[in-house]
Amino acid sequence: MTFEEMIGSSGEWLRGTGPEAEIVISSRVRLARNIRGFRFITKMDTAERAACEELVQRQILDAKVAQPLLYVPLHKADPMDRKVLVERHLISKEHEDAQHQRGVAIGANEAVAVMVNEEDHIRLQVLQSGFQLQEAWRICTRIDDALEQRLDYAFSPQLGYLTACPTNVGTGLRVSVMLHLPALVLTRHIEKVFQAVAKINLAVRGLYGEGTEASGHFYQISNQVSLGRSEEEIVKNVEHVIPTIVRYEHNARQTLLAKDRKRLEDRVWRAYGMLKYAQLLPSDEAMMLLSALRMGVHLGLLKDVSLRTVNELFILIQPAHLQKLTGRALEPMERDVKRAEFVRSKLNPQP
Amino acid sequence: MTFEEMIGSSGEWLRGTGPEAEIVISSRVRLARNIRGFRFITKMDTAERAACEELVQRQILDAKVAQPLLYVPLHKADPMDRKVLVERHLISKEHEDAQHQRGVAIGANEAVAVMVNEEDHIRLQVLQSGFQLQEAWRICTRIDDALEQRLDYAFSPQLGYLTACPTNVGTGLRVSVMLHLPALVLTRHIEKVFQAVAKINLAVRGLYGEGTEASGHFYQISNQVSLGRSEEEIVKNVEHVIPTIVRYEHNARQTLLAKDRKRLEDRVWRAYGMLKYAQLLPSDEAMMLLSALRMGVHLGLLKDVSLRTVNELFILIQPAHLQKLTGRALEPMERDVKRAEFVRSKLNPQP
Repeated sequence: MTFEEMIGSSGEWLRGTGPEAEIVISSRVRLARNIRGFRFITKMDTAERAACEELVQRQILDAKVAQPLLYVPLHKADPMDRKVLVERHLISKEHEDAQHQRGVAIGANEAVAVMVNEEDHIRLQVLQSGFQLQEAWRICTRIDDALEQRLDYAFSPQLGYLTACPTNVGTGLRVSVMLHLPALVLTRHIEKVFQAVAKINLAVRGLYGEGTEASGHFYQISNQVSLGRSEEEIVKNVEHVIPTIVRYEHNARQTLLAKDRKRLEDRVWRAYGMLKYAQLLPSDEAMMLLSALRMGVHLGLLKDVSLRTVNELFILIQPAHLQKLTGRALEPMERDVKRAEFVRSKLNPQP
Repeated sequence: MTFEEMIGSSGEWLRGTGPEAEIVISSRVRLARNIRGFRFITKMDTAERAACEELVQRQILDAKVAQPLLYVPLHKADPMDRKVLVERHLISKEHEDAQHQRGVAIGANEAVAVMVNEEDHIRLQVLQSGFQLQEAWRICTRIDDALEQRLDYAFSPQLGYLTACPTNVGTGLRVSVMLHLPALVLTRHIEKVFQAVAKINLAVRGLYGEGTEASGHFYQISNQVSLGRSEEEIVKNVEHVIPTIVRYEHNARQTLLAKDRKRLEDRVWRAYGMLKYAQLLPSDEAMMLLSALRMGVHLGLLKDVSLRTVNELFILIQPAHLQKLTGRALEPMERDVKRAEFVRSKLNPQP
């Protein structure tokens, strides 16, 4: 699998299938691991970082953690390719921006990604479409076991897995679910959800982490505590709260349909009309229009578009994807033109 | 010709043809006349008004001022039908609202309309598509001559034709041209046009007279003085200024194309997308969207819609037309639904 083949298709988590896929975009599990005998990344010199990256890369490839598997040496990669990987949620912003030797192994359909030399030596991520935390956890733990047979993980009997940042010590586990909650935003109940989630020590973030909260009405719910509980408890703790939020969003959608159906239809169809014909499409506006479209598709108000197409558009209209598609860097205005062009090409039937 | 047949088709002035039709919607000439031996309308009692209406009606029908000719006795007409006639520019708002015996004779294609017992005993109007003031004046004066052979017009050798309001005394002539000036509005040059027009004693009004100025970027230019000049001079005076305004509007459109083509295309295509898919369409918004669409059609930015379709929509989406179409009175929200439905039916190809 080449980089171009990978970005030509779309990730497993964008399929728009899986349980509760109308509201739950994806389920994600991430483990932080470090190798005994190496210092943490920030303490390493250049040679140590290189040695660590080479060792981990070799073991990931040998362990065949996924088939096919693409390994991208990020320090040698084109800066635009790194941005594309961020937009696809395969590496973090910090991993993109770092300067040292590092990489990412990406499994088939992007369901698996192993970041090497990010904040920790290893960050193993498994993403599944819809509400499938148990399945994601099952895959993740299997790969983690395979790597643990080949690598000597830094582990303390008292503390558990050791990590660069104390907030990850213990299980090294971060469990998160990406939700699409437009009706809770429209009915102004989203703040109540935030408050309820905060009370049980879960965090809420936007599509691309903190500070991107409004974008497309996407919200990530994740655990904040990784210590003092078993992995299964942490997974279950996040898993437990999701059906309630999903039910709230369903109810909010039904309330909008019952009380203000015409206005909802108007919002959805206008979004479709704008996306289908606009010639300039700023990113924020596009995300909001796609959000309305996505809800309309789920509610059956609009039947010409698939959930998968809408899901994919959320990612493919991001700046780096557009620039990769065009083959060169683009000014903001050019991006708005290309974004509009690309969306039109996806929503208008080809002659 | 029945009333229903008339409103099922569209008026001559909406054909979207004729000289400068991209910018000049229509040319209109109106003569005010009164019959010797009758007092002015406001001074008459009920019996006199009835006698006057019956005499004038008979003479109009006998003179065959146009073929076919529909005479609508407004005092007996359905109130909604009266509103439809106002929206089609065939009677005035005052004529709609009056209580006494009165009527209107409407000629084929609505090019000719003769209001009976409006402010004056006779208000003869001729409307032509595009910039055709001379043709409108030719038709108008021919009909006026035919009526003058059958009716004894109130005329003073010193003052000319006598009218109920002193501003119409003399020729009784009002000449007006309806212009579509979206680019002058967008480039913020419209105020300059108003100032220039005011300096030569012409008036500027909106689509439905005073106080409707912004609606759809339509502007009516007309003479204010009807005394002390010949009819031909008055026609020429208005006729003279139009090519300059038309040229300004053309230049403004070319400037927008040259300097900001993408933004202009975006505006036009978004308007198309909204009109094609909106489920709720308030009147003001619809007019503005149609205005952008109309300019886009003229500039060749959008080829799927004809100028005639757009011209007709401006009239057919007015409240009374929508209610006539639906067959009952509609609440404002229902009107927005019906308006959106109707526009969609005109812009989406039928399956």
